[in-house]
Amino acid sequence: MSAAERAPSAAGGAGRGAPGPPQPFFHSRWVPAPAHVRDLGPDAGLPLGFRAAGVAAGIKPSGRTDLGLLVCDSERPVSAARFTATGTPAAPVLVSRERCRLGALRAVLANSGCANAATGRRGLDDAAKTQGATAAAVAVDPAAVALASTGAISHHLPVEAIVKGILDASSRLSRDGDGDFQQAIQTTDASEKRASLELELGSGPVRLSAQCKGAGMISPRFATMLCFIETDAALEPETAELLLGVCVKRSFDRASVDGQLSTNDTAILMCSGSSGSSVRPESEDELRFGEALDALLRQLAIMMVADGEGARRIARVLVRGGHVESVEAVARAVANSPLVKTALHGADPNWGRIIQAVGAALAGTAPLAVDLSIEGTPVCSAGVAIDYDESALARAVERAEVEYEVTLPGEGAETEVFFSDLSHQYVTINAEYTT
Amino acid sequence: MSAAERAPSAAGGAGRGAPGPPQPFFHSRWVPAPAHVRDLGPDAGLPLGFRAAGVAAGIKPSGRTDLGLLVCDSERPVSAARFTATGTPAAPVLVSRERCRLGALRAVLANSGCANAATGRRGLDDAAKTQGATAAAVAVDPAAVALASTGAISHHLPVEAIVKGILDASSRLSRDGDGDFQQAIQTTDASEKRASLELELGSGPVRLSAQCKGAGMISPRFATMLCFIETDAALEPETAELLLGVCVKRSFDRASVDGQLSTNDTAILMCSGSSGSSVRPESEDELRFGEALDALLRQLAIMMVADGEGARRIARVLVRGGHVESVEAVARAVANSPLVKTALHGADPNWGRIIQAVGAALAGTAPLAVDLSIEGTPVCSAGVAIDYDESALARAVERAEVEYEVTLPGEGAETEVFFSDLSHQYVTINAEYTT
Repeated sequence: MSAAERAPSAAGGAGRGAPGPPQPFFHSRWVPAPAHVRDLGPDAGLPLGFRAAGVAAGIKPSGRTDLGLLVCDSERPVSAARFTATGTPAAPVLVSRERCRLGALRAVLANSGCANAATGRRGLDDAAKTQGATAAAVAVDPAAVALASTGAISHHLPVEAIVKGILDASSRLSRDGDGDFQQAIQTTDASEKRASLELELGSGPVRLSAQCKGAGMISPRFATMLCFIETDAALEPETAELLLGVCVKRSFDRASVDGQLSTNDTAILMCSGSSGSSVRPESEDELRFGEALDALLRQLAIMMVADGEGARRIARVLVRGGHVESVEAVARAVANSPLVKTALHGADPNWGRIIQAVGAALAGTAPLAVDLSIEGTPVCSAGVAIDYDESALARAVERAEVEYEVTLPGEGAETEVFFSDLSHQYVTINAEYTT
Repeated sequence: MSAAERAPSAAGGAGRGAPGPPQPFFHSRWVPAPAHVRDLGPDAGLPLGFRAAGVAAGIKPSGRTDLGLLVCDSERPVSAARFTATGTPAAPVLVSRERCRLGALRAVLANSGCANAATGRRGLDDAAKTQGATAAAVAVDPAAVALASTGAISHHLPVEAIVKGILDASSRLSRDGDGDFQQAIQTTDASEKRASLELELGSGPVRLSAQCKGAGMISPRFATMLCFIETDAALEPETAELLLGVCVKRSFDRASVDGQLSTNDTAILMCSGSSGSSVRPESEDELRFGEALDALLRQLAIMMVADGEGARRIARVLVRGGHVESVEAVARAVANSPLVKTALHGADPNWGRIIQAVGAALAGTAPLAVDLSIEGTPVCSAGVAIDYDESALARAVERAEVEYEVTLPGEGAETEVFFSDLSHQYVTINAEYTT
């Protein structure tokens, strides 16, 4: 067993079920908790105006919880949503995007065990039926019910079982149903990814919570997983839209497990306004709420990467200089390189592979004067290897979080991508235990 | 052990060292041998006018053969070359591309064990010294000596040892030195990739041979590995340039092990003319020579993919319809998807992952009416799952070569990419046995 094998796993480090006291929600060095935000722990329940439930509807052959229902009881809810950019979107994405009032959602029906993707006309009909059943069960307009599914592609939804499950779930809705709802959306996730936060705003305290899933088929475009976010603050529709858009771009958009954009990714923010506190556009409170939402989604994105299928270790690649297009291409090339990811896995400071990925991303350009630092140690200057303490670097890359800084010629642009390693377990999970 | 574990390995299938009679060079169903081409077997030696050698110069700590020398004895040689498109090219690529008469090469010095990449000014000087030493040892102009290196990035060449090795190699040059030369350029290759062919041309028989290496850091841009090709036919410089360019585009350009473009990729065609047969531009013989070169490079590219680090199984993805850009993006997205590659590894007909890769490649487009067939069996029509014999398909994807056909809406464009699976062994090779 190598030193790398003995390192604590990234998922374990991020997990909430580890022995001993629960880990604080904000535990990555890349996401400092804002001063006005308090972590209420996983059992604090949902913000005012929300109820949720999760039941076993029989979609998963294992009999596990697989159907989740989230309801906002406010008569004037405000919401915003983001979906996968894929050219082969799943039926729930199409139905939610095209037939919902995304700015005023009252409910979300989410299931695991079946993606309802590549299911054509019947998939759309099935999705519409579950939307109608949810509307009836919780007494809201069907256009106020968003749908989200995750699981294997190409299978049809078991609609009859789901309709029964909706009735069951609607009878179990409660403010502390977020744990069951979380269970219902998980697939290969090894750790729970949810939070309940309290924010001190000028207008008083508000609550902000989220439930999130994602471990594989995770790639840096927006909303590359399922995430549901609730607050009892009152937001204007434009504010919800703006803040969700910006924060998704800085979090899920910057996370990659395997560079694979999913057919089903969905992120939804719902605001009940039930706390009585309002976040006014361009106010100090908008800034504070935005900061909290940003930290929440960034920490969730990092937890998603740390729970990347089989992940032992995660990394951040920071790319500076050049142009917007070049830093983006370089960051993604490094984050998605199987050679970089296996070196990260093996705690191998084999930085030649990072130079290779940079060169491949900017193929056809003149030879590049690239600088590279790993955990703050410069290893390559203007494209040329430089001397450094090799044993110190070898120890540094054994940590659970590793940072690479790439500097390209030129100035102005900057980006980052969070990514996981590539492990035997990723191969095992995806080669031998599927279908 | 699953059925998949028991399937013959792709590398083993392509390997030449298997027990029993040697496998014919043309053994992939995707490359039929042209009727006018005869496989002379691995021990037939080089075409007239060529000599080669491989020695252990001490670049590799293991003491294995690591320095190869290839010489063309013709006074009026014709050659052509292709190099990696990377933005971080290695010193030997820069020196060969910028300081050689690439149309009239007389010699190639190639080494494994050190890529001479990310080595800056000193790397260029080191490369130039070995070029000069080779020129002196074989009595040719330095500008007629091309350089190629492969191995770890960021290390400097041991120049003194290499100069001794050049002298040693130059004293051992022989027409049947191609086997040792091949040994000298191999790194993680598990099987030998070389051929000696005889072509029946109108002007008489000519010989065509090649030695090739490549198992990791292999991606679909041109010349993503090292390949040296020799013929005793006489070609015009324009013909050599044209045929190498076209054939590299149809072979190495379509091969991917891990989507990683290398810093050192090089392909060189050298023509001695020593057979007395000339290939005239736009003649029937040009067509016949081109067909043979095309088959040679395609079979080598497939052997390279089959020898992909840890590969058990290889695939071809054929994409039709759409536009040139969309078929290219889709073919690469499928070939480089870790989800598709692990499914290939596990002999898992989990075709939802192919649909996912197609959608990701064409993100932001309208929902796509994609057709997909696997081994001739339609599984998805216009984006919708259709019924098929699941057990027959499961058996079909256990073969050593698997074919996926994707059809996009629209017409006109078509492309293909050959790729390997993603295995535990790839992770082991790249995570635990490097640096």
